[in-house]
Amino acid sequence: MTYCVGLLLKDGLVMLADTRTNAGVDNVSTYSKTFVWEDPGERTIVLMTAGNLAITQSVVNLVSEGIPDPEDPHGPRATLANVPSLFEAARLVGRAIRQVHDYDAEAMRAQDTPFAASFLLGGQLKGRTMRLFQIYAAGNFISAAPDTPFLQIGEHKYGKPILDRALDYGETTLEDGVKLALLSMDSTVRSNLSVGFPLDLVLYRKDGLKIFRQVRIEDDNAYFQKISRQWSEALRDAYHVLPPPEWT
Amino acid sequence: MTYCVGLLLKDGLVMLADTRTNAGVDNVSTYSKTFVWEDPGERTIVLMTAGNLAITQSVVNLVSEGIPDPEDPHGPRATLANVPSLFEAARLVGRAIRQVHDYDAEAMRAQDTPFAASFLLGGQLKGRTMRLFQIYAAGNFISAAPDTPFLQIGEHKYGKPILDRALDYGETTLEDGVKLALLSMDSTVRSNLSVGFPLDLVLYRKDGLKIFRQVRIEDDNAYFQKISRQWSEALRDAYHVLPPPEWT
Repeated sequence: MTYCVGLLLKDGLVMLADTRTNAGVDNVSTYSKTFVWEDPGERTIVLMTAGNLAITQSVVNLVSEGIPDPEDPHGPRATLANVPSLFEAARLVGRAIRQVHDYDAEAMRAQDTPFAASFLLGGQLKGRTMRLFQIYAAGNFISAAPDTPFLQIGEHKYGKPILDRALDYGETTLEDGVKLALLSMDSTVRSNLSVGFPLDLVLYRKDGLKIFRQVRIEDDNAYFQKISRQWSEALRDAYHVLPPPEWT
Repeated sequence: MTYCVGLLLKDGLVMLADTRTNAGVDNVSTYSKTFVWEDPGERTIVLMTAGNLAITQSVVNLVSEGIPDPEDPHGPRATLANVPSLFEAARLVGRAIRQVHDYDAEAMRAQDTPFAASFLLGGQLKGRTMRLFQIYAAGNFISAAPDTPFLQIGEHKYGKPILDRALDYGETTLEDGVKLALLSMDSTVRSNLSVGFPLDLVLYRKDGLKIFRQVRIEDDNAYFQKISRQWSEALRDAYHVLPPPEWT
């Protein structure tokens, strides 16, 4: 399992992924699930992946090396380094997923392995709007929007309540967005063994056209430990001061 | 779907269930999933159910009307009103589930309907220890304990982080337990449409040998609305005062 979360904020994007992969509980590895295509000043595209590692690695390969453009099959191959918009980038990832599906899904089905994969895609191209997409295993996708400013893939439930309650497209700063993404991840890591450190954090400032920060956060990271501890204390303090129930 | 949570605390039990059932999104009903067998001063047994309503209603029927004791098949039927301990009560529910499985599972499988049901069982008999169990669809069960003082059935993930962080068998009072169960339910109701009001809350004080309070909480309940709002505000305040990340 995996947990990745992307926040679309007025001032930029916060994207956070864990790095744990597992086939059963006794075959656990660390793989980065975060991929960046960047041409500073021109384009910044970030892809995060969840699901079957064989599928997601094939998809990343295809969108890096390029696949034929269906409208111009003999022209140059489309890659995330040359697509003309984030929307076309999401479509390209979707086409790559469908190509992997065509190639692998039947053999996987014969082994009772579900075709499970999902992706977060965020970024901006020069002169275009900053976007954040979630792409499904069928290759179709949805976009984050001010009303729904976060998207999650993988083990998403444990980390959702804090985002539901506290995140706001217009009011949450990039700094607070980082805190919320880390708290959402912390809730998930505590509850699901298959989500684990290190974490990959990517920050993008709107119109920056380059990654503002990309950080790998290890489990002994002092800042992460500090906010995790302070948050638990704050929650305990907060529920203590709620009014007592009328029924006790 | 359903969400039920039971807390085993030093001073008693807090059990909370929603009442929504649905077959698809257009066949939504309200059913109590909370059942009590009580003989004040002698026994208090509370059962909460999740899963397929046809299964859980059959199980409740069987443990109310009684099923033959396998060690004394011609003797009096065992019911939750006459079992000699909470452990035997959990076994009885398990036997009832297996009886329903024997009767219905094959026909359900032919219709691709999974045999899904789970139960929380809590209470105390005179002179015995207060217990809280979770019973699975296979009829086997586990018990809450000081190290793991809460059990959840149904849609459990959204409401788990707050309990992981704040609940403590020895330190959480019954009053704080009610707050935490309601906050856990609030996180779930916000995230999953198939979990809904009204809620059934049951409080049992250790050695009381009768229900201390049983309350139905409607969605316009002033106390629930108040703590839900205050909690959201407290969370927002709490993450604002966390130290800023070193990377922004």
